[in-house]
Amino acid sequence: MSTKRIGNRTVKLQNGPTIISAASVVGPKEGKGPKSEYFDLILDDDLYGEKSWELSESKMVQTAMKKAAEKAGKKLEDINYLIGGDLINQLFPASFAARELQIPFFGIYGACSTMAEGMCLSSMLIDGGFADFILSGTSSHYCTAERQFRFPLELGNQKPMTAQWTVTGAGSVLISSKGEGPKVKFLTVGKVIDKGIDDGNNMGAAMAPAAIDTIYAYFNDTKDDPNSFDLIATGDLGKLGKQITEDLLKEKGIDISNVYTDCGIEVFDLEEQDVHCGGSGCGCSASIFAGYIYNKLKNKEFNKVMLVSTGALLSPTSTLQKQTIPCVAHAVVIVNEE
Amino acid sequence: MSTKRIGNRTVKLQNGPTIISAASVVGPKEGKGPKSEYFDLILDDDLYGEKSWELSESKMVQTAMKKAAEKAGKKLEDINYLIGGDLINQLFPASFAARELQIPFFGIYGACSTMAEGMCLSSMLIDGGFADFILSGTSSHYCTAERQFRFPLELGNQKPMTAQWTVTGAGSVLISSKGEGPKVKFLTVGKVIDKGIDDGNNMGAAMAPAAIDTIYAYFNDTKDDPNSFDLIATGDLGKLGKQITEDLLKEKGIDISNVYTDCGIEVFDLEEQDVHCGGSGCGCSASIFAGYIYNKLKNKEFNKVMLVSTGALLSPTSTLQKQTIPCVAHAVVIVNEE
Repeated sequence: MSTKRIGNRTVKLQNGPTIISAASVVGPKEGKGPKSEYFDLILDDDLYGEKSWELSESKMVQTAMKKAAEKAGKKLEDINYLIGGDLINQLFPASFAARELQIPFFGIYGACSTMAEGMCLSSMLIDGGFADFILSGTSSHYCTAERQFRFPLELGNQKPMTAQWTVTGAGSVLISSKGEGPKVKFLTVGKVIDKGIDDGNNMGAAMAPAAIDTIYAYFNDTKDDPNSFDLIATGDLGKLGKQITEDLLKEKGIDISNVYTDCGIEVFDLEEQDVHCGGSGCGCSASIFAGYIYNKLKNKEFNKVMLVSTGALLSPTSTLQKQTIPCVAHAVVIVNEE
Repeated sequence: MSTKRIGNRTVKLQNGPTIISAASVVGPKEGKGPKSEYFDLILDDDLYGEKSWELSESKMVQTAMKKAAEKAGKKLEDINYLIGGDLINQLFPASFAARELQIPFFGIYGACSTMAEGMCLSSMLIDGGFADFILSGTSSHYCTAERQFRFPLELGNQKPMTAQWTVTGAGSVLISSKGEGPKVKFLTVGKVIDKGIDDGNNMGAAMAPAAIDTIYAYFNDTKDDPNSFDLIATGDLGKLGKQITEDLLKEKGIDISNVYTDCGIEVFDLEEQDVHCGGSGCGCSASIFAGYIYNKLKNKEFNKVMLVSTGALLSPTSTLQKQTIPCVAHAVVIVNEE
């Protein structure tokens, strides 16, 4: 077996792929949330000067990527690969961003797990010496997601209390083989788990089993101690999915409760902002990681963090065909080395 | 700069990631095409016993993946990663296949470039020692693609002569760090290129510039000789796109005409099967590679092949918003080592 693998599912990176910079862009509502001070850009208008929400979303992720490169003093020509995707059919925002940025492009789709999926792939490609710099990022937009997955906004549909609110936001990280910053040390790639939930307005419950499976696999493979982490952040399970994850992991002997949060809870004020169970969308864990968490890592307020972005791989077509919701979660462990 | 990189864009794999098996499944029409003898399974009925075309497409790619594992004498539990995707919104077929196969899953989207995209990622992850076995594959289905991208089949719409016919087919390869078989030696990842074509019924012309860009980058980086190849196969540019690619590469000083074909031309009999410019869809280069090309490599009739899967990253939404078509092409060079 490869010496870079630990246990069944986990990879231990040998050469310390480093997150040398990160940047985030969010919409007006997210800019009023509790983590607003950590975002690089808060838009006044969610159209961002474009003619459509999809073009706005594409511009948001472009901006996050350009800013991440700029912060590290890198030109776009220095970047070997761009790895990205989003919720929108055929990755309209990411594909158009890749056209603009002119960096060789791997399109990925993991629904709201995309941020961690991109970080897993980027870290391995850097660690293996196949690239010197990789930009990875993702986005979501409340208005593009609602009309694609649910109803036209103009209908003003109401949602049940288990529903979440798609974040308008983008986040990007620049990962390199050298330079200063926190390093990706472990990653655990998710299996697709489906426990039979078919309610697209209860994604937290649908995705929690995937998060549990991946987090459990990590701890089972590494025998690591949950309390050695400063933060374990799933995203975006929301309030209900977080509770399920915490409870069921405890039943399986893994108690993460002291260090556990969910990006969907961090991004909005659940009491004040009328978002029901919390934030969701690829941009949720992307902006919270690239904004809040990365800044805390950089400042050494956090020294060991696990990001577990979670995605629901349903489609409107699969739902109409009465299929249940397959879900996936990928874990990335990031540390400041002494 | 990383020693695994050559020139600007090309990666040279050091540890000989090996394609130890491949398998393909195609629909009835493809089973009447000129390469039918190379496919592992030809369906009698394009519903494949399922209730919807999407579920049929998912079953096709599952079958191709299971057969690839079986041919190499591997169990699904032995496989570290599954890398796949398809044309369908939210990767309905691939996501459901990953749910069934229970292998840690990276979802990717590169439209019809997905086969080569998956092979690029798989080869690097194997070469870098992050996995021992990776299954990579993709699919397309005439009936799922037509209704999603164009019109309901029941309308019986006619198409212009520049249009192509989406292949009902799936192909999968099993790549490993050891074992017998042809090896992936070089890869060149594509940039997103858009020369302003906005006609979704002329994908060959839209995608040709992306193929040209990637093939040119490979030859520019490596100084390799086109005539050292037994075959250079783009896919799926069709008749028109192939001609454009051949002509414009010749203008740039790269003459591939002696060894050049396109998977969209190989899969159907263009004179007899009423497919206009030829085959298209992720399943086109996937089934032609996993069927015809892989078999010829295995038998040493071919000893050096370049597969350049090409994808058009448009969406129905981007088209409605009057956007042109961004395209991408990834190249994988596979050799039998003496």
